[in-house]
Amino acid sequence: MEGVASLSISLDEYREEKKRVVDRALDGYLPEQGGMSSEILGAMRYSLFAGGKRLRPILCMASAEALGGSAEIVLPAACALEMIHTYSLIHDDLPAMDDDDYRRGKPTNHKMFGEGIAILAGDALLTEAFYLLSMTHPRVSPETGLTVIREIATAAGFQGMVGGQVADLRAEGEAVDMERVRFIHTHKTQALITVSIRAGALLAGGGSDDLDALSAYGDKVGLAFQIADDLLNVESSRAVLGKDVGSDKGRGKATYPALIGIDRSRTEMRRLVEGALADIDRFDKKAEPLRLIARFMAERKS
Amino acid sequence: MEGVASLSISLDEYREEKKRVVDRALDGYLPEQGGMSSEILGAMRYSLFAGGKRLRPILCMASAEALGGSAEIVLPAACALEMIHTYSLIHDDLPAMDDDDYRRGKPTNHKMFGEGIAILAGDALLTEAFYLLSMTHPRVSPETGLTVIREIATAAGFQGMVGGQVADLRAEGEAVDMERVRFIHTHKTQALITVSIRAGALLAGGGSDDLDALSAYGDKVGLAFQIADDLLNVESSRAVLGKDVGSDKGRGKATYPALIGIDRSRTEMRRLVEGALADIDRFDKKAEPLRLIARFMAERKS
Repeated sequence: MEGVASLSISLDEYREEKKRVVDRALDGYLPEQGGMSSEILGAMRYSLFAGGKRLRPILCMASAEALGGSAEIVLPAACALEMIHTYSLIHDDLPAMDDDDYRRGKPTNHKMFGEGIAILAGDALLTEAFYLLSMTHPRVSPETGLTVIREIATAAGFQGMVGGQVADLRAEGEAVDMERVRFIHTHKTQALITVSIRAGALLAGGGSDDLDALSAYGDKVGLAFQIADDLLNVESSRAVLGKDVGSDKGRGKATYPALIGIDRSRTEMRRLVEGALADIDRFDKKAEPLRLIARFMAERKS
Repeated sequence: MEGVASLSISLDEYREEKKRVVDRALDGYLPEQGGMSSEILGAMRYSLFAGGKRLRPILCMASAEALGGSAEIVLPAACALEMIHTYSLIHDDLPAMDDDDYRRGKPTNHKMFGEGIAILAGDALLTEAFYLLSMTHPRVSPETGLTVIREIATAAGFQGMVGGQVADLRAEGEAVDMERVRFIHTHKTQALITVSIRAGALLAGGGSDDLDALSAYGDKVGLAFQIADDLLNVESSRAVLGKDVGSDKGRGKATYPALIGIDRSRTEMRRLVEGALADIDRFDKKAEPLRLIARFMAERKS
């Protein structure tokens, strides 16, 4: 595995390389298996390998590399973050939540395996994430390992991602204001993205100045990513996005475009990306992948 | 908090004292709160304080005390184990799983808060458990903290508790044999009970001989506990147990009494309790609470 991305690398090449590394690692952590575990493992792997962009693991590795750390050391944590993200998608898609039949053009987990198994596959992925997080690299101090677990649990729990999903669930069909939409986005999406970046930095031995700068970057990139998602949901065709176009709006979902319109949403997203780039201004060329990812947010097509 | 239980303490007194300590700690870890988190916290607290026996935390503390450790040091881990147990009950009760309307005489979580919130309350409790596990006591080494997280994640995940629930879900309405029933019991119930005892011993600095003896004890007590549960389900009245009598059998649930009858189940349970007592024979009087708990299994009334 390459330690540091060269300056001339393109974002596509960087993402492809990292995605391959993550996919291989996930496959190794949760290999197919016969016997009593085969069904639940099959359901876990179905969603884990359903075409995710691996944004959180890539950000985690890029953050470590920006501080001169190696992607290899943070790989278990990076994969854990992808498992937590995947579990949240499986549970969000359930009939009792967003009730989605398709995700990335494929039937959702509960459509494939039934609701009971889908709930358990999510539970198992969340649990497995913490198993992986407990497997710190020999070059990482156990104290740092525990700090990363504490931060990720906070970002994923009722004060973070789960809290955002509760607010999202309650917002359906209700008139929501900007404050509520921001709450949902910062909790449901931004929290896990920011902690992915912080985890990479912590495991790479970053100091508090580095952590502060990368957290500020992460908060902005995380929010920009969600606004881009909102915009794509309004604009894209089902063929590109793999789910019903405008399905968010159709159910009165809380989104930026619904509240402030497409143009202002796009302006806000660009402002966040510029701010994120400024946050990591003082980092050297090893932070180039983080810069490319931030710029990519403003141009997302899927 | 008392460090070591005196010889003359009764099991009721011991359990009451420990239950009080655990309840107070859980209340402190997840205090009621206003604002956006109040709803999900309310749902988490509803099931957490719905009258649980706190068996897993009590076993965790009793195990630490058996090795001369203090219950205080293992309290966060003990509470984390209760949160994991509670999350599993909330999810097991869902319509897509066992579809139970009552638990301990009270409406189940999804009956009170709706399915969406019940799923999220379970997710949040599981996540919060790992947050608590990351908060190791200053007198516990971070390495040991990570080991406990790794063991608990393994016992709770697809190779443990979740795996048992998958097998249980699949067993409904099917003809199941003894091998399958044993798989369900050892995974769904025994794994978390054994790891509760192991966590207490690890955090108290137990050596591998201690760990082996306590694991053997835990495996037997955990299985005896589940057989007692099966027997109670057949025999008890709804008033005592708080759920529909014979509801397990009614849905063709895999149980010991259904397969080998009440008398042989009771004999097997007693054999396990005797074996558990023999496993910890060499421990001194500090292990007395563990002995009382083992004997209690054979006499459970609720």
